[in-house]
Amino acid sequence: MKVYNTIYNTNLFLLTDFYELSMMQGYFYYDRNTEVVFELSFRKTPFNSGFIIFAGLQPLIEIILGLKVDKEDIEYISSLGLFKKEFLDYLKNFKFTGSIYSVEEGEIVFPKEPVLRVHAPVIQAQFLESIILNIINFQSLIATKTARIVESAKGKTILEFGLRRAQGIDGAISATRAAFIGGAAATSNVLSAKIFGIPPKGTMAHSWVMSFSSEYGSFEKFSELYPENTILLIDTYNTKSGIKNAIKIFKKLKKKGIKNFGVRIDSGDLETLSKFVRKELDSAGFKEAKIVVSNELDEFIIEQLLNRGSPIDIFGVGTKLITGHPDASLGGVYKIVAKKVGKKIIPLMKISDTPQKISLPHIKNVVRVFKENKFLLDVVCLENEKLAKYEFFYDIETDFKIKIVDNNKTEQLLRPIVKDGNLVYDFPNIYQIRENTKHNLSLLPDEYKRLINPHIYKVCITEKLKLQKEYFIKNSQKYLTK
Amino acid sequence: MKVYNTIYNTNLFLLTDFYELSMMQGYFYYDRNTEVVFELSFRKTPFNSGFIIFAGLQPLIEIILGLKVDKEDIEYISSLGLFKKEFLDYLKNFKFTGSIYSVEEGEIVFPKEPVLRVHAPVIQAQFLESIILNIINFQSLIATKTARIVESAKGKTILEFGLRRAQGIDGAISATRAAFIGGAAATSNVLSAKIFGIPPKGTMAHSWVMSFSSEYGSFEKFSELYPENTILLIDTYNTKSGIKNAIKIFKKLKKKGIKNFGVRIDSGDLETLSKFVRKELDSAGFKEAKIVVSNELDEFIIEQLLNRGSPIDIFGVGTKLITGHPDASLGGVYKIVAKKVGKKIIPLMKISDTPQKISLPHIKNVVRVFKENKFLLDVVCLENEKLAKYEFFYDIETDFKIKIVDNNKTEQLLRPIVKDGNLVYDFPNIYQIRENTKHNLSLLPDEYKRLINPHIYKVCITEKLKLQKEYFIKNSQKYLTK
Repeated sequence: MKVYNTIYNTNLFLLTDFYELSMMQGYFYYDRNTEVVFELSFRKTPFNSGFIIFAGLQPLIEIILGLKVDKEDIEYISSLGLFKKEFLDYLKNFKFTGSIYSVEEGEIVFPKEPVLRVHAPVIQAQFLESIILNIINFQSLIATKTARIVESAKGKTILEFGLRRAQGIDGAISATRAAFIGGAAATSNVLSAKIFGIPPKGTMAHSWVMSFSSEYGSFEKFSELYPENTILLIDTYNTKSGIKNAIKIFKKLKKKGIKNFGVRIDSGDLETLSKFVRKELDSAGFKEAKIVVSNELDEFIIEQLLNRGSPIDIFGVGTKLITGHPDASLGGVYKIVAKKVGKKIIPLMKISDTPQKISLPHIKNVVRVFKENKFLLDVVCLENEKLAKYEFFYDIETDFKIKIVDNNKTEQLLRPIVKDGNLVYDFPNIYQIRENTKHNLSLLPDEYKRLINPHIYKVCITEKLKLQKEYFIKNSQKYLTK
Repeated sequence: MKVYNTIYNTNLFLLTDFYELSMMQGYFYYDRNTEVVFELSFRKTPFNSGFIIFAGLQPLIEIILGLKVDKEDIEYISSLGLFKKEFLDYLKNFKFTGSIYSVEEGEIVFPKEPVLRVHAPVIQAQFLESIILNIINFQSLIATKTARIVESAKGKTILEFGLRRAQGIDGAISATRAAFIGGAAATSNVLSAKIFGIPPKGTMAHSWVMSFSSEYGSFEKFSELYPENTILLIDTYNTKSGIKNAIKIFKKLKKKGIKNFGVRIDSGDLETLSKFVRKELDSAGFKEAKIVVSNELDEFIIEQLLNRGSPIDIFGVGTKLITGHPDASLGGVYKIVAKKVGKKIIPLMKISDTPQKISLPHIKNVVRVFKENKFLLDVVCLENEKLAKYEFFYDIETDFKIKIVDNNKTEQLLRPIVKDGNLVYDFPNIYQIRENTKHNLSLLPDEYKRLINPHIYKVCITEKLKLQKEYFIKNSQKYLTK
């Protein structure tokens, strides 16, 4: 439970949208104890991907359970002139006392299905909106991007090299975490490596080479200092001559019995240059030498390079991985779906002029249905609904009647994480999460993993949920006036 | 000097790329005291913009001057097994003792020209690379994006609403700062508002409306609590009926003598709905009521809405502002340009197979040339070079001979910020920086501010710098071998 404490002061109470505070004061006076349920879902996949990798749960829960309201926070809120003393007194002891259900990190999820659910008094559940969206949207975006890049690399190694182009300090740190979950093998970011216990990696910069009076001299010094980790950057002046200097160094290293060396190419045409460099290395007898490339890589460039037989062993991916380019954001939304009035649970639903902004009413679960041990489809159902055998489901977008489940294996995706303010879940370590991602991706049929135009995974709703939705749309008028 | 201390532990020493540490150990053994100069420049503008707004200097300098190496950091680096005791002992007392020159925040800058310069022993100057790029690239990206959005809004108000879609915690916080510098009027992010002393703003969420048994009831309660700040979200169920409920509330408020109210529309066709809503408000006698819109806005959508006469007063801009969509990164690079050997300064230059990756050699300044008090062109010259009257310059990209400077007003863009490890610059406050941005934009001729296909601002080099560059390209071969 310490991922973020090392970089942030724990006090992130004010990291919230201003309207959450305004609404909290409103709830405080009108409705503070009403129990409600909010659900998080993604409107669509990023990058036109066939899937989303869910990430960010552990840091999120740490922040929520570690929330602390300082005197200074209260003074600041008070200084805004909109908040009353009674409410400020309430805030002083603010603490999350509700329950949270969530899919696990590394789980594969799809648009429209609930991936996280908060049960709490409305004043608390509302408050969590901004922080939940901030953390989960971004980490899931980057885990998904990385999984696509790793998929494109067909078993070759992906290193995350994004610190210098990341969106601020945490844009780097939390992205490193998500990238590792998505399948990156290591990071260039030393602080992230330390915090998350993942391997730091790097080679040398052009400035190293340039600060010496010759390229050869710079290579020589580097290999003396790091004989077991000599990856030489050969494009400072000209890759075709840089490789000659590198080979001279490798000859010396090999004489000493060392075999772990290679070159990095950071510019020029990576296909042509990697083929040229491989040939030079091989004919000099260095079949073991690795070729690392970098320079504005993404999943499409990597797939093409490998499809065209570029003999590259390791890809250093920076900008486009760390920023989730070109989408740069994931549209997760956190919507109220039910409230408790007395003993009764009243389902709620957002109607909208923009069809994508319509939400599904009521407290829901997600059941994943398997076929021959692979993912077949997901079913969104009511919280306590048991799926019957031979049941019809309805496409979540179109309401088409689509499937009957036979004796297929099924799995509930939402797990209890926090109950009444207490953690009830053992966070797996980050290596475990990374393994889970890999395992889950192996269960997702290939056609959903295509980079371009993937098959669309079926997410369905049950008959009962469909009836709820229809009831709401029919009766939406009544919510407009008292 | 406290912008970041409130959110981060000051110890960001390890927030660096691993290769910086490897190279530092190399410099430690081979070259530690050599004085070098590194320069930061941007390869191109983001968003095909005609300009870049420079931002991030104050937080960057705070971090650099506040660097602190903990025992725990040393233990971690030591645990990696690549670093020797002598070097680790050196790191324990690591401190920046060099000098930094930079353009000021809010300055308008252009590709290829140096915007920040570090003079320091190579071991220190190299170390700063990752943090300089991380902070300046991102904040300049967001300041530039916001300036474009503000430009498109033709005097209407822009609110930054990005927390929930930002790239992590600092992806939100530091972007809020940059957005304010770029011209945003306020932020939804309460923590940012507190840290930077800028106004927090917000309205209400759909969940507020939905948690009440009727829309009207939810509006009524809100306006009771915030009579002076009643902005009602009217699209939870249907904008056309939502406006009717809002008008009922405004009637009550007006009776009390209150005039500061309005509505927010967050979905549907914003042109049609804003025109409809304006008409309803006006015919009910509420010409003073403001219309706020949000929903995936950017500079192009805002420009189009306003060009088509949409009567919108305030734009809440989230995702695309806070992530600098669609670029999501700015390609600033930090390159070594000179080193001191004995008393002699040796210029350095990066040659590359990728033409955009070629750097300009030697320690440089930037002189801005004005014509009739507007920016005319920028000249990149050698550090101590004085521009003569009637001098020819050369286009930085093409070497075309292009201009003669007469008696034009000129200005040096790089200012001393840190000298020998000590701050020598008074940071303007963030309101001042925001004013500077506005003022600078007013001096940039309109044709460079077009959103699409802007005119390309001329950046030139002097004859002396051109000769340096040519000398290097001619002699690059000699750097390859000793």
